[in-house]
Amino acid sequence: MSLEPGFCDLGFAKVDIARQKRRGFPEVIYSAGKTREQIKNICRELINNKQDLLLTKLEKSVYSYLKKTFPRLKYNIPARLGYLKSANKLPKGNVLVMCAGTSDIPAAEEAVTTLEVMGDKVVKLYDVGVAGVHRLMHNIEVLKKANVIIVVAGMEAALASLVSGLVSCPVIAVPTSCGYGASFKGLAALLSMLNSCSPGITVVNIDNGFGAGYFASMINK
Amino acid sequence: MSLEPGFCDLGFAKVDIARQKRRGFPEVIYSAGKTREQIKNICRELINNKQDLLLTKLEKSVYSYLKKTFPRLKYNIPARLGYLKSANKLPKGNVLVMCAGTSDIPAAEEAVTTLEVMGDKVVKLYDVGVAGVHRLMHNIEVLKKANVIIVVAGMEAALASLVSGLVSCPVIAVPTSCGYGASFKGLAALLSMLNSCSPGITVVNIDNGFGAGYFASMINK
Amino acid sequence: MSLEPGFCDLGFAKVDIARQKRRGFPEVIYSAGKTREQIKNICRELINNKQDLLLTKLEKSVYSYLKKTFPRLKYNIPARLGYLKSANKLPKGNVLVMCAGTSDIPAAEEAVTTLEVMGDKVVKLYDVGVAGVHRLMHNIEVLKKANVIIVVAGMEAALASLVSGLVSCPVIAVPTSCGYGASFKGLAALLSMLNSCSPGITVVNIDNGFGAGYFASMINK
Amino acid sequence: MSLEPGFCDLGFAKVDIARQKRRGFPEVIYSAGKTREQIKNICRELINNKQDLLLTKLEKSVYSYLKKTFPRLKYNIPARLGYLKSANKLPKGNVLVMCAGTSDIPAAEEAVTTLEVMGDKVVKLYDVGVAGVHRLMHNIEVLKKANVIIVVAGMEAALASLVSGLVSCPVIAVPTSCGYGASFKGLAALLSMLNSCSPGITVVNIDNGFGAGYFASMINK
Amino acid sequence: MSLEPGFCDLGFAKVDIARQKRRGFPEVIYSAGKTREQIKNICRELINNKQDLLLTKLEKSVYSYLKKTFPRLKYNIPARLGYLKSANKLPKGNVLVMCAGTSDIPAAEEAVTTLEVMGDKVVKLYDVGVAGVHRLMHNIEVLKKANVIIVVAGMEAALASLVSGLVSCPVIAVPTSCGYGASFKGLAALLSMLNSCSPGITVVNIDNGFGAGYFASMINK
Amino acid sequence: MSLEPGFCDLGFAKVDIARQKRRGFPEVIYSAGKTREQIKNICRELINNKQDLLLTKLEKSVYSYLKKTFPRLKYNIPARLGYLKSANKLPKGNVLVMCAGTSDIPAAEEAVTTLEVMGDKVVKLYDVGVAGVHRLMHNIEVLKKANVIIVVAGMEAALASLVSGLVSCPVIAVPTSCGYGASFKGLAALLSMLNSCSPGITVVNIDNGFGAGYFASMINK
Amino acid sequence: MSLEPGFCDLGFAKVDIARQKRRGFPEVIYSAGKTREQIKNICRELINNKQDLLLTKLEKSVYSYLKKTFPRLKYNIPARLGYLKSANKLPKGNVLVMCAGTSDIPAAEEAVTTLEVMGDKVVKLYDVGVAGVHRLMHNIEVLKKANVIIVVAGMEAALASLVSGLVSCPVIAVPTSCGYGASFKGLAALLSMLNSCSPGITVVNIDNGFGAGYFASMINK
Amino acid sequence: MSLEPGFCDLGFAKVDIARQKRRGFPEVIYSAGKTREQIKNICRELINNKQDLLLTKLEKSVYSYLKKTFPRLKYNIPARLGYLKSANKLPKGNVLVMCAGTSDIPAAEEAVTTLEVMGDKVVKLYDVGVAGVHRLMHNIEVLKKANVIIVVAGMEAALASLVSGLVSCPVIAVPTSCGYGASFKGLAALLSMLNSCSPGITVVNIDNGFGAGYFASMINK
Repeated sequence: MSLEPGFCDLGFAKVDIARQKRRGFPEVIYSAGKTREQIKNICRELINNKQDLLLTKLEKSVYSYLKKTFPRLKYNIPARLGYLKSANKLPKGNVLVMCAGTSDIPAAEEAVTTLEVMGDKVVKLYDVGVAGVHRLMHNIEVLKKANVIIVVAGMEAALASLVSGLVSCPVIAVPTSCGYGASFKGLAALLSMLNSCSPGITVVNIDNGFGAGYFASMINK
Repeated sequence: MSLEPGFCDLGFAKVDIARQKRRGFPEVIYSAGKTREQIKNICRELINNKQDLLLTKLEKSVYSYLKKTFPRLKYNIPARLGYLKSANKLPKGNVLVMCAGTSDIPAAEEAVTTLEVMGDKVVKLYDVGVAGVHRLMHNIEVLKKANVIIVVAGMEAALASLVSGLVSCPVIAVPTSCGYGASFKGLAALLSMLNSCSPGITVVNIDNGFGAGYFASMINK
Repeated sequence: MSLEPGFCDLGFAKVDIARQKRRGFPEVIYSAGKTREQIKNICRELINNKQDLLLTKLEKSVYSYLKKTFPRLKYNIPARLGYLKSANKLPKGNVLVMCAGTSDIPAAEEAVTTLEVMGDKVVKLYDVGVAGVHRLMHNIEVLKKANVIIVVAGMEAALASLVSGLVSCPVIAVPTSCGYGASFKGLAALLSMLNSCSPGITVVNIDNGFGAGYFASMINK
Repeated sequence: MSLEPGFCDLGFAKVDIARQKRRGFPEVIYSAGKTREQIKNICRELINNKQDLLLTKLEKSVYSYLKKTFPRLKYNIPARLGYLKSANKLPKGNVLVMCAGTSDIPAAEEAVTTLEVMGDKVVKLYDVGVAGVHRLMHNIEVLKKANVIIVVAGMEAALASLVSGLVSCPVIAVPTSCGYGASFKGLAALLSMLNSCSPGITVVNIDNGFGAGYFASMINK
Repeated sequence: MSLEPGFCDLGFAKVDIARQKRRGFPEVIYSAGKTREQIKNICRELINNKQDLLLTKLEKSVYSYLKKTFPRLKYNIPARLGYLKSANKLPKGNVLVMCAGTSDIPAAEEAVTTLEVMGDKVVKLYDVGVAGVHRLMHNIEVLKKANVIIVVAGMEAALASLVSGLVSCPVIAVPTSCGYGASFKGLAALLSMLNSCSPGITVVNIDNGFGAGYFASMINK
Repeated sequence: MSLEPGFCDLGFAKVDIARQKRRGFPEVIYSAGKTREQIKNICRELINNKQDLLLTKLEKSVYSYLKKTFPRLKYNIPARLGYLKSANKLPKGNVLVMCAGTSDIPAAEEAVTTLEVMGDKVVKLYDVGVAGVHRLMHNIEVLKKANVIIVVAGMEAALASLVSGLVSCPVIAVPTSCGYGASFKGLAALLSMLNSCSPGITVVNIDNGFGAGYFASMINK
Repeated sequence: MSLEPGFCDLGFAKVDIARQKRRGFPEVIYSAGKTREQIKNICRELINNKQDLLLTKLEKSVYSYLKKTFPRLKYNIPARLGYLKSANKLPKGNVLVMCAGTSDIPAAEEAVTTLEVMGDKVVKLYDVGVAGVHRLMHNIEVLKKANVIIVVAGMEAALASLVSGLVSCPVIAVPTSCGYGASFKGLAALLSMLNSCSPGITVVNIDNGFGAGYFASMINK
Repeated sequence: MSLEPGFCDLGFAKVDIARQKRRGFPEVIYSAGKTREQIKNICRELINNKQDLLLTKLEKSVYSYLKKTFPRLKYNIPARLGYLKSANKLPKGNVLVMCAGTSDIPAAEEAVTTLEVMGDKVVKLYDVGVAGVHRLMHNIEVLKKANVIIVVAGMEAALASLVSGLVSCPVIAVPTSCGYGASFKGLAALLSMLNSCSPGITVVNIDNGFGAGYFASMINK
């Protein structure tokens, strides 16, 4: 590892411009807790260094503010994800992003856009939760064609184990905060996915569609 | 199980129109986390397939929006429950819905309306918590006439155990998020009900009056 | 409710001999935390009043001790359940007891024996967890024939939701403490079952096969 | 407050011999986590200062060890409580110690012996949990005669609220670790008692029969 | 216990008008989760039966609404407590209400007003937390004169143990939700008070100044 | 998916002999909570179907028992893992298994043996926790050569984030129960890994070296 | 310790004017939960006694209100910290305040301003989290020059352990509530820091930059 | 930072022999979860490099095993701490180690021995908990003479705040797992100490006397 700087020091932030080279994808901006001015300055630094932009947990109003300076910046509304892709890449193979219910779509879309920015080909299969399992079984060939599957689910999150048991590809599970009462803002789904009886599953943080998309892109070949 | 579709694919949702046949009641719409347009489209699909509607956790403003398209849609205010019952059914026997305090009425009403939409006859007994147990004892004949009892209670939720010990019919316990401090938004009531020293009780999620009503209807004969 | 005694006062215990009449089944003895002498004396009181015996969480060594005094007492080893059924009853209809994995059998057997003592006809379907869902699908006709289904599962407990989505009968879910790490001794399974996306499920305490069997018997007709 | 010493310094302990005078009862020895030699030395110091002894959470084997040195030391087996009362006091009025089930007797007995050592007159009412509430109702006159009531209960601990609603005297609630699964070693009972819908209840630590007895003695007049 | 009604049935509430006679103080209205109309109707019923009013967790705007109908109704702003005392009672002896910091005053005032409505004489000692213990020590004679002490404290709530160790009267501890981060909305203070190393303390729910005042009044003689 | 049986029904277990074909690796036996006879019978069934064996959480004494029947069965002591590999496979590329401290070796070894049974080439790098980060930096070329990295760590589990930030390959994080006090049996490590500020990490259950090894093998190419 | 008053009694507060002398720094005002009038009166008392002011968790609108009365009062916006330094002190040696990400700056700034008011010389090093560790390594000489280091980090908070392993000076760790999902408002960071595998770290409450700054000033020489 | 090795690679461990130079004290061995052979080999490596030994959480039986090879190794029984100090150092100034109760002595002794091995002068003050605060007040001059104070306490851990409020030196708080019920193995004490209303306190892990001693030595001058 080079210990030369490889970063731009803005005082409040040290933008890691070496990350693209070191890790294969630029630094991603976690927008929560940053002021809009801070975000803008970090974006400018990354663009000046010819890097793609991905901004997670980005409020729509902040997006509108940034859009004035960076007119090519795009936004996925349910995913609250800003992005700017500098050039087209050759799409990599098939990642399937599934979600259990319509209320899980925000985290699923965060994964989808992350994958697309990273150059992956994405197939979506939404609202196939186990309450009506025939919706899943009807699509079993779609599952079998995937290189990697991301399963996004809240509440009891049973879908992850079920899908994993049907396929030979890796499954990345995203618990969501969807639900109420004893879902405890996604804790139930998180524990459920961590305790899957079916091997071949790993888990990311609650509502972390971005992290799942990022990891899926790393293993999609 | 038939693996033919049995669902309508709207992209963001796969409406399970086979559910009425398979499970005896149509798909119920969990409204939280869905956009009003998504809810409207799912409703339309179910109505087109001649199914009853039940929409849980429905904001009143969304109800007003839906009412314009579906003028026969009704709404239970404290329960935040939308519903549309296509035809009268012969009422099934007696389900008793009890609650411990006035603050528990929203979850109780959610159970009541669910039962009524599913064709059950409901008796209500509200505000009979153990702080003044003579209110309960005065109504003991009402308890003994029930086929099934739903007990809705927050805080320490002692009512469920007490009722169960007095009757020979099954008791479904609904913990509510009513309370403050160490009620931890219903956790105290949930744990209390799960640990009942009196057998003959099962439990649903915090504030899940719908789930209790649905289950009670299944076992009410 | 009669306020006449209806109990035998042993000092350390007040045996509820009115329970058979009031609730349809005698008092059940929770054995943990009681001395063997206390248990013996409670058993004698119930037998003298011509009631069936059911002893939950009964250590095998205590069973052996009791067996000397009550030679007809029986014991289910994995369930740690002692029982003595005074006479044959006409078996009631079909309750299906399912479990996800072999490690869940103790709680399942606790339900099975409880049901048998209470006069229900039981069908068992073990080790049909979602890691290999074809084992479940192959038995779908068995599911459809049940009046009531008890689903026993630990870890992520996905089986309960899946089964519920396939049938029109009520499902009683029993979380088990089976698992390790983030299963937190059954908490993951409990939360999962409470948050089922499929209606028609109620839940009992972790490892409470007895409570599930008791409730199932109440609603089995 | 006097700031003169008022204690004996043993190095590992500073025995508070002023406590009898300051607080009306001598220092009580919490035995867990102390070596048997440490306990013996503290006892000797208190006896030399003519004070009563109360040793909580005392293992029986340690009691036997102490008995050799202090032959008048007594022991309550289920309560794991050692005590030595130097002289008879005029008994104070009536404290009622109730428990919900036989498995709650250890904590109840800890309260009883504490009260007796402190000179209170105790009435016991055991195994009157809400699963068979007629056992409680049959004894309602016993409740009404009490100056103070201690309610000891595990699992859902519904008894505390129920009793409080029937009487005009103060109720001290002792949650116990009795139970399994989602009782989480007494957490369910503790939360239940803290959230009582009936005013007139205060709560002590899980299994802290001693603390309840001590407090009851303070307010018993 | 009389099983005649002793309550007024308003449908949504069964007002317990026998409570004054049975328990020495009328039913207290927990205002959270009730509509303003419901509260008004319950108040009217109690007034018609010549009972005092106490309304906890009452929003100021609801108080203003009620004031129009019941012009004699009073309100304690920080305590969010409405009350109406029908007649003067002979004041009972001295209850001391202490709080650790200024931020704990709302719960302390809830206790104070409850006590005053119930006819107790109250002394206040505020902002005497352990960060500057000389403030407490300077007032030690005030502590020694009390019949009962209520200690209200958030954060680490050390004050309760400290006070208890200095006096011979009973101490009722009220944890508050005051604090941030790892105070977890009062959980830290609650656990601290439950684990006091000094006997003579009992605990009520987080922020439950009312419950502490009510209990203190019961034991104040 | 074929719905023909594809399993052997042993009553207490339904051995999923179709799993090798469906998922690329046979059913793995979770040994905890099963009797030794049950385990033996499941092993026999898998061997009869010419499948590899992997037995997780296997007590050494049970291994010795099984060894008598299956003399080729091997055992990894710290990992408590039994295995039987029917034939040599061509080794797949490089998986690096790292652990932070010596106390984390059991989970690391569980991953290593799982990988070796599945035909992967493994490199080990143990005891490179962040307390002495030069040990890690000295091995940075080893990290860069890996296709996949498994990071096993307890306590604060900082190693996972640090490693992920240095490499472009995917990182699978295994929290361990190593530690004491506020590690809460691995909860601290689990939460730490789920909240990694560095993307490219997914997480498995506490102490689940097997699950990490299995997943790593799926993505190792 | 003097037991003379040493405080000013305002009724709602007892301002500890002896604290400067006793502890080396005046009483600090925790602003949350106090009314603006209460805060103003406490400030006036401290100023009258010629003490510095530090007001934590101070809303900006309250600051503006106070500014009218105390025009020299200053405010650190992200830290929500008001302060008034009566005179310049000779700066003490070097305290380094580091934070992992830009979102952690509020707590870091709270520490910085606290240190500056207390007369310490501060060096800042922001956004050096482990996702790009070269940013830290590039500044290693800055670390080595510090007398004391404060590490502020949310999410997995790995930075604290890493820094501690590189230096010989004490490290004070401040977990922040920055993050989402399983960060549980800083719980993950708190547990991580408490479980550091590297000795030489102590921890303060979540978001308690003030406490860390205060402690650092005490040990900075 | 030097990136030359600076460690001895034993395969299962990489002994950090550069730590003495880098951090001022050698690597400390956390003994839990290591085999006795592993511990012996690590010890030998450190001794060969002329470094002091400190072994935390060391079972007495393992100590006896090690003693055969390293006859100069010493052991503190309640602290479960092995140590070997190669040469006398000039004692540094005064660190005061206090504990609230006799049951907290193990963690206190762990701090004491750590300090002594690191060359600090230690004063002990045991059993001065707040239940009898005169024991503390009597020793106030001892407190005032300390450079650094370590406060060890379980249960409600009120001592830490109280001590901090009396002195101008830094206080390091060690929560202990001493207690029962709602102490939740030290969680209550930990939360209490983290929420101290008195600034000047930092906290270490539950029962981590070693960490407190190590940190105190760093700041003791």
